[in-house]
Amino acid sequence: MADTKLWTRIAVALAAVGALALVVGCPPSKPKGSKRPAAASDIAVAAEKTYVPPGDLDEYYMFSSGGHSGQVYVYGIPSMRHITTIPVFAPYSGTGYGFDDESKAMLGNLTWGDVHHPALSETGGDYDGRWLFVNEMNGRVARIDLRDFKTRQIIGPVPNISGNHGSTFITPNSEYILMSSRFSIPIPKGKAVSIDRYASEYKGVAAGIKVDPKTGQMSLGWQVLLPPFDWDLGDAGKKLSEGWFFLTCYNSERATGKLEVTASQRDRDYIAAIDWRLAEKAAAEGKGELVGGVKVLDPKTVPGLVYLLPCGKSPHGVDVSPDGKYVVGSGKLQGVTTAFNFEKVLTAIKNKDFAGEEDGIPVLKYESIKDAEVPVGLGPLHTQFGPDGMAYTSLFVDSALAKWKLGTWEVLDKVPMSYSTGHLAAAEGDTVSPDGKWLVGLNKLSHGRHLPVGPSQPESSQLVDISGDKMKLVYDAFTEPEPHYAQIIKADKLKPIEVYPREENKHPLAIWDVKDAGVTRKGNEVLAKVVVVRSSMTPALIEVNEGDTVKVALTNIEQTTDELHGFGLLDYNINVVLDPGETKTVTFKADKPGVFPYYCTNFCSALHQEMQGYLVVKPR
Amino acid sequence: MADTKLWTRIAVALAAVGALALVVGCPPSKPKGSKRPAAASDIAVAAEKTYVPPGDLDEYYMFSSGGHSGQVYVYGIPSMRHITTIPVFAPYSGTGYGFDDESKAMLGNLTWGDVHHPALSETGGDYDGRWLFVNEMNGRVARIDLRDFKTRQIIGPVPNISGNHGSTFITPNSEYILMSSRFSIPIPKGKAVSIDRYASEYKGVAAGIKVDPKTGQMSLGWQVLLPPFDWDLGDAGKKLSEGWFFLTCYNSERATGKLEVTASQRDRDYIAAIDWRLAEKAAAEGKGELVGGVKVLDPKTVPGLVYLLPCGKSPHGVDVSPDGKYVVGSGKLQGVTTAFNFEKVLTAIKNKDFAGEEDGIPVLKYESIKDAEVPVGLGPLHTQFGPDGMAYTSLFVDSALAKWKLGTWEVLDKVPMSYSTGHLAAAEGDTVSPDGKWLVGLNKLSHGRHLPVGPSQPESSQLVDISGDKMKLVYDAFTEPEPHYAQIIKADKLKPIEVYPREENKHPLAIWDVKDAGVTRKGNEVLAKVVVVRSSMTPALIEVNEGDTVKVALTNIEQTTDELHGFGLLDYNINVVLDPGETKTVTFKADKPGVFPYYCTNFCSALHQEMQGYLVVKPR
Repeated sequence: MADTKLWTRIAVALAAVGALALVVGCPPSKPKGSKRPAAASDIAVAAEKTYVPPGDLDEYYMFSSGGHSGQVYVYGIPSMRHITTIPVFAPYSGTGYGFDDESKAMLGNLTWGDVHHPALSETGGDYDGRWLFVNEMNGRVARIDLRDFKTRQIIGPVPNISGNHGSTFITPNSEYILMSSRFSIPIPKGKAVSIDRYASEYKGVAAGIKVDPKTGQMSLGWQVLLPPFDWDLGDAGKKLSEGWFFLTCYNSERATGKLEVTASQRDRDYIAAIDWRLAEKAAAEGKGELVGGVKVLDPKTVPGLVYLLPCGKSPHGVDVSPDGKYVVGSGKLQGVTTAFNFEKVLTAIKNKDFAGEEDGIPVLKYESIKDAEVPVGLGPLHTQFGPDGMAYTSLFVDSALAKWKLGTWEVLDKVPMSYSTGHLAAAEGDTVSPDGKWLVGLNKLSHGRHLPVGPSQPESSQLVDISGDKMKLVYDAFTEPEPHYAQIIKADKLKPIEVYPREENKHPLAIWDVKDAGVTRKGNEVLAKVVVVRSSMTPALIEVNEGDTVKVALTNIEQTTDELHGFGLLDYNINVVLDPGETKTVTFKADKPGVFPYYCTNFCSALHQEMQGYLVVKPR
Repeated sequence: MADTKLWTRIAVALAAVGALALVVGCPPSKPKGSKRPAAASDIAVAAEKTYVPPGDLDEYYMFSSGGHSGQVYVYGIPSMRHITTIPVFAPYSGTGYGFDDESKAMLGNLTWGDVHHPALSETGGDYDGRWLFVNEMNGRVARIDLRDFKTRQIIGPVPNISGNHGSTFITPNSEYILMSSRFSIPIPKGKAVSIDRYASEYKGVAAGIKVDPKTGQMSLGWQVLLPPFDWDLGDAGKKLSEGWFFLTCYNSERATGKLEVTASQRDRDYIAAIDWRLAEKAAAEGKGELVGGVKVLDPKTVPGLVYLLPCGKSPHGVDVSPDGKYVVGSGKLQGVTTAFNFEKVLTAIKNKDFAGEEDGIPVLKYESIKDAEVPVGLGPLHTQFGPDGMAYTSLFVDSALAKWKLGTWEVLDKVPMSYSTGHLAAAEGDTVSPDGKWLVGLNKLSHGRHLPVGPSQPESSQLVDISGDKMKLVYDAFTEPEPHYAQIIKADKLKPIEVYPREENKHPLAIWDVKDAGVTRKGNEVLAKVVVVRSSMTPALIEVNEGDTVKVALTNIEQTTDELHGFGLLDYNINVVLDPGETKTVTFKADKPGVFPYYCTNFCSALHQEMQGYLVVKPR
């Protein structure tokens, strides 16, 4: 084990330098790459490169995690414009999400989530433009349909998973999504075990969530028991490494308390390699135990299921090269990143070339499986790929990006970033055939980069032109909190619809003609079927009695693009938005007597202001 | 009365043309101004004009209403970048708003609002950069402190007000904010009166909300009873017209049912002119009646309080020129906008030159008070001002902007917009000394302007360069739903803080040293005082019993900019964010046994991932 105290001293010193640098408004440390001052001609070139004139369209979509805002934010590239917000784990009254019966039920009892890593669905290792999956820390994963940019399913909280950070990472044909526990707990959830017994009775868990290849519907697959480390980030193998999941961890010390000190005792943590085809097979064969309602496989009883690759202390990202040969990971305070050769990993496994074990899981030998330590710079967190073996690594401590080459391991260029870049997203950068062209650094700190907005400073993302030999920083954009990761897909891969075709609407309460609209009653249950269309709501009057349970079923019968209507009911906290061709319901108890207007909240036509009605609640 | 059926036919035809045009992706109709094709050189100029290179700052802030999303969105100009979101009327887990005890209490029982018209505080008719006020439809107004960009007060739901659309409009020295009822109801709220008695027993109400000149604290002022029209939009008089509030209305027919038909019987509706100094005086003298807990003045008993200016049918905006002399308003389907001369209004009042009355309120004569009908084009909705008598009017039906001159009434230029521009915002455009330079059109439809994002199409805003003789459309930006209005202020007028100074923190549960942190118990009430600082939370363990009421008081003791920390408690739906120097509390019932991790949700340092702890809830 290396000098732990020294390591801690370095970390503390670095944090202090970072803090000081921020106060005076400069990056924590200067990258070693040559500084390219922005000449007027450079500015003009950057302006034109990123400018999307009125009427023109961006070349790529970027789907960016919204962190603890619970949402996904969509940007256009190269304009870096925020072009829409997709509500996922938090209500969003802008689209009425979380207010109608259907989306409210999907959210359950949670009104926030901590979104981390979006994953576009893949076919043959390429983004196929069908779905976007995103995880959040309360053990959930959501599926967004890219046909309409709507959240269509939320699975979870998934049993046994706690702090679902290492997620969602998807296999090359979207068979499975990975989830994992960042914070180990006693399982099943609900068991209260003293923290003193952390090392032996708290459990790490990785889960494979099965994805239906036709519909994208997610279901519980299998889970794998892991030691009580903090499981952090992952990636799925591809091509040469297809069939494997990789997952980093920190705190292999199994420490509790102040982890900043207690979890820094060892020189190396691990990358776990999980054979997901074997997990699938073992679960199908009835192996494992039901814990919390899901099949949990113990690596002790399924040989070959998991191996541990020693990695620099406290790694963050682990990234598989487009050909699947290299698995790249680094200690987050190292000056190098390690390229593990997966062929060597397979050989070591075959030869049982092990250094030891953790809870029955074999530990491979670092020297046997690594191909290179690439001197990228200080604080390598995450690597993305371009064509021709190009790799790009974010340097958190250096506040810079490094460009280097797989195989030759040369560092070719560095560019300063502002500041503390965490993840990177390259155009089609997680696929078997990355595009190059554009790279976005998702920065953790933004001080001084934009007009000041008070102590609650937003994050920032920066666009880097990687089309030439040298990287060029060309644009700064604020990003909604908190960008953990993003994926960038070619715009022409998506063909979103603009209207829900009437013939697809199978909602049992849908109506298409004002003659079918009206209010009916069964005991104290009132059903109001409402037609919403320019420029009226029919009926314009709903009369109920205090204490009634009222269900309003709204159908927007428009089949014209951009003709959204909203249904805002004042004082009752109701706000539903209906896209063209959509039916939604909202159910509430009429517990306040009086007269309550309802009105269209989404502008729709010249007579939008006239689109209103009244709910009259007669007192008991 | 004019030919109502013809008017209705025109409106229906226009709506149909608009819909058709949208299907084929072109603006509803071509503006008459010459079309300026975008040459390569024009594009280069526009690119450079709007490009803010990395490290440079925007020139202006734009505060834009977020409509039914409930929030305010801040943009930089000329980059048109969305630079931050200010949560106001809806929870926003990105900043933990609506999750801690303090902000949860401020929101009350409503988790959305329909934000319409932001108003920057003014001194001497100029934005002074102290506060931003915004209304929402459920009868509320919020104050945002521009020192820290935080919502600091929400007043309301204000009694008697229903559908608070005509708000917030502020007086030149921020004495009052105007509110009003778009949807008349029987008052006080809670009275259920049949809709048949709408014309006589439903009431329109305008309210003056008093603003404390030192603190910005809002309190109930007075209210004015108005006929049951739909009160729409307003503006405060300035200079020559200081002391007056103006408020448009539609549905002076007092109709119910399908307003698109029933509220189009008359040729003209009104702009109400309210003498707010007289209202203040009358209320102080004890006039009026207490209704719903607030003093309501009936214009019948306070002569001179309100006058009605006849205006083209169904006006939207009403806008007072920088010198206070002209009050500009138009029927929303007219081809002209009317400039009323306030000197003539005062003369007509003095001479009792009235055409009739509505519920005891004198109606002035259109011909006696108007100076000009300016042929701006079809569908004039809202006018903003520049220096030298320049005026800019949005043309909703034409999908264009018109530039014209006060006094000469010449229309000088037109520029096409995409599409259906509602409000406009000019740089410092609502002040006594507008800047010119930049004008933003807040468009209601955005079809085809950006990469498609499904049926739920966002709105768009367009930046127009108004520095030269001819207007130039230079940038398209998506805007969060739904931009109703915006104000643009010079960046150097704001000096936001970056850290809450420790000495200002008077929270009774604030602690500044880990030695004061810990858990105490009184019966089944548990108080956990937690210190949050890079890179730990102290204590890292909170043990409670199932059924306990737990209050966690968190202090972020950092005094370094950008060092935010979050407190996410999994499975308990808790997510608090603390800016440097801030203390917040969150209270919950420990109703689920088990082990629940808490962790920092806002990236803060290299050891951010290590910043975690456990809540252990022991079963009963």
